[in-house]
Amino acid sequence: MIEKQGNVMFFASRPSVLFGAAVGGKAEGDGPCAKEFDFCYDNDDINCKTWEQAEAALQKEAMQRVLQKANLPPQDVDVLFSGDLLDQCVASSVAAKELKIPMAGLYGACSTFASGLCMAGIFAESQAAKTALVCASSHFCSAEKQFRFPLEYGSQRPPTTQRTATAAGAVLVGHGKSGCCIEAAMIGTIQDLGITDAANMGAAMAPAAADTIARFLKLTKTQAGDYDCILTGDLGSVGSQLLCQILFHNDLDISAVHEDCGNLLFDIEKQDVHAGASGCGCSAALVSTMFRRKIEKGELQKVLFVGTGALMSPLSVRQGESIPGIAHAVLLSRK
Amino acid sequence: MIEKQGNVMFFASRPSVLFGAAVGGKAEGDGPCAKEFDFCYDNDDINCKTWEQAEAALQKEAMQRVLQKANLPPQDVDVLFSGDLLDQCVASSVAAKELKIPMAGLYGACSTFASGLCMAGIFAESQAAKTALVCASSHFCSAEKQFRFPLEYGSQRPPTTQRTATAAGAVLVGHGKSGCCIEAAMIGTIQDLGITDAANMGAAMAPAAADTIARFLKLTKTQAGDYDCILTGDLGSVGSQLLCQILFHNDLDISAVHEDCGNLLFDIEKQDVHAGASGCGCSAALVSTMFRRKIEKGELQKVLFVGTGALMSPLSVRQGESIPGIAHAVLLSRK
Repeated sequence: MIEKQGNVMFFASRPSVLFGAAVGGKAEGDGPCAKEFDFCYDNDDINCKTWEQAEAALQKEAMQRVLQKANLPPQDVDVLFSGDLLDQCVASSVAAKELKIPMAGLYGACSTFASGLCMAGIFAESQAAKTALVCASSHFCSAEKQFRFPLEYGSQRPPTTQRTATAAGAVLVGHGKSGCCIEAAMIGTIQDLGITDAANMGAAMAPAAADTIARFLKLTKTQAGDYDCILTGDLGSVGSQLLCQILFHNDLDISAVHEDCGNLLFDIEKQDVHAGASGCGCSAALVSTMFRRKIEKGELQKVLFVGTGALMSPLSVRQGESIPGIAHAVLLSRK
Repeated sequence: MIEKQGNVMFFASRPSVLFGAAVGGKAEGDGPCAKEFDFCYDNDDINCKTWEQAEAALQKEAMQRVLQKANLPPQDVDVLFSGDLLDQCVASSVAAKELKIPMAGLYGACSTFASGLCMAGIFAESQAAKTALVCASSHFCSAEKQFRFPLEYGSQRPPTTQRTATAAGAVLVGHGKSGCCIEAAMIGTIQDLGITDAANMGAAMAPAAADTIARFLKLTKTQAGDYDCILTGDLGSVGSQLLCQILFHNDLDISAVHEDCGNLLFDIEKQDVHAGASGCGCSAALVSTMFRRKIEKGELQKVLFVGTGALMSPLSVRQGESIPGIAHAVLLSRK
């Protein structure tokens, strides 16, 4: 049964994050987190004809690698929670149709992986599923084409932009032996402070991250220092600074324990990625591998993962509307 | 706790569908189900500047009407499951941001409302939420513009097309007095038989509906005759015929109890809507009002609602890819 403190859901049985895998593209393989990935391609087309197919291929491979590690055939997975940034989450549909796993499609932009972990925790805790697969992906080329300009156009990107990760991450959640578990989760509320700049996702998401973190700490009567890491994904350098500023104005200083997946995936200076990384695949890849492993090994005991999403529609941005942000929190801890 | 028969989840506490509401546009108000709606506008712009804003306004109003009936302020709702057909589910984000309810965004095309009912059932059963709001919408003009041609273009629509409902439906799920409950649910698996025609959604969805219905009956060891109604939403006339044919070839005859929301919303002949209605808002509106009421009144005892979605991306259709279909089942019954 799920116990609640306000809107925070606690999972008494502490469902395990049993296995994880991530695959990436060329820039990810050239970056400081390359060794965390199961595999990085040396091209961005992932040997496919279109960027959309390439993204679907990344998702499919991440899921297949998790299932191989678990030695579990796809038909034994009870439910798949997946999503991506593309219109109608098409990369997820294409990847899921080949694996033939019951699929609950999610939409939360870059918060999708956190949203999926929330759902997997609830399904495992309530025995709605014995095993739940969570997967999210993004692709630099499919995302730029859809949200801003096709790369072939050669447009100059302003300093506030983040480079969408070409990556997919997947985990298998269930009950079994693992050093990493989902202890609690909280579904976030949309925050919108009126950002209309499609090239500044960090600013659109920071208020939602701040709201979710402040609320989670208040409801659980904990402080930033009670966590080894408060991990946002993916605010990048601009959004991370804004998040710390907003919280600081509310008498919360998280700077000592704050990390952001968007600041970790690339070498921001050397790889010329402006304000860092973004995209569903960024936090999905790093949480599925690096952070899961650090918790398993005991290097980190408690990680408050806050997946942040800019629910940006290119159409509504062109219509002059602002970009709503959302952030879901998942407390990952050592079991 | 949730008991399972294969992939079917049974909710022992039988969470109630406490309240429901639906709002629609002009064609819906002119149709045979007009009296089921709480309100139908005499225009399709719902007094808004853009079709996307109009769709968001429909969602917001449907949710507000449910909350008014429940006499519940938005901040007392634990979670909102919502989605729509637009890129990045923008109508749902805009509607949810104004109500400030924690939101788990779903993507399942026209299966969204069924997917939301599944989730609400699991959240209520596991006590992850005391009250869960489920909402879905669609709009004829925003959908045509996005998926096929802007209406201003005046393109001729082939006979297999369905008219997207301009409507939103919402229900509040929780524990309390109500004659209608969620007894069981099953998340569907993507089926794709290679349909590439964006003007024939019925054909893309029928195989998924057939798979889900056949599997649900088999796993629960029931027959079509055990249900007062097997309600698909929304296959329309073309998809409904295909569904019955596919099942008939598998020795399952559901024709005596089969109904489809897409065949009910409009007067297909008089309103010139080709193959019927479609869109997330169609089944959301009819299940939230007409079918919920019929169950409450005891006119129907057991309704197997199978929400069907064509996970169609206009981009991948233009790239020559086929359209994946999915169908989620929810067993609604008299309490």
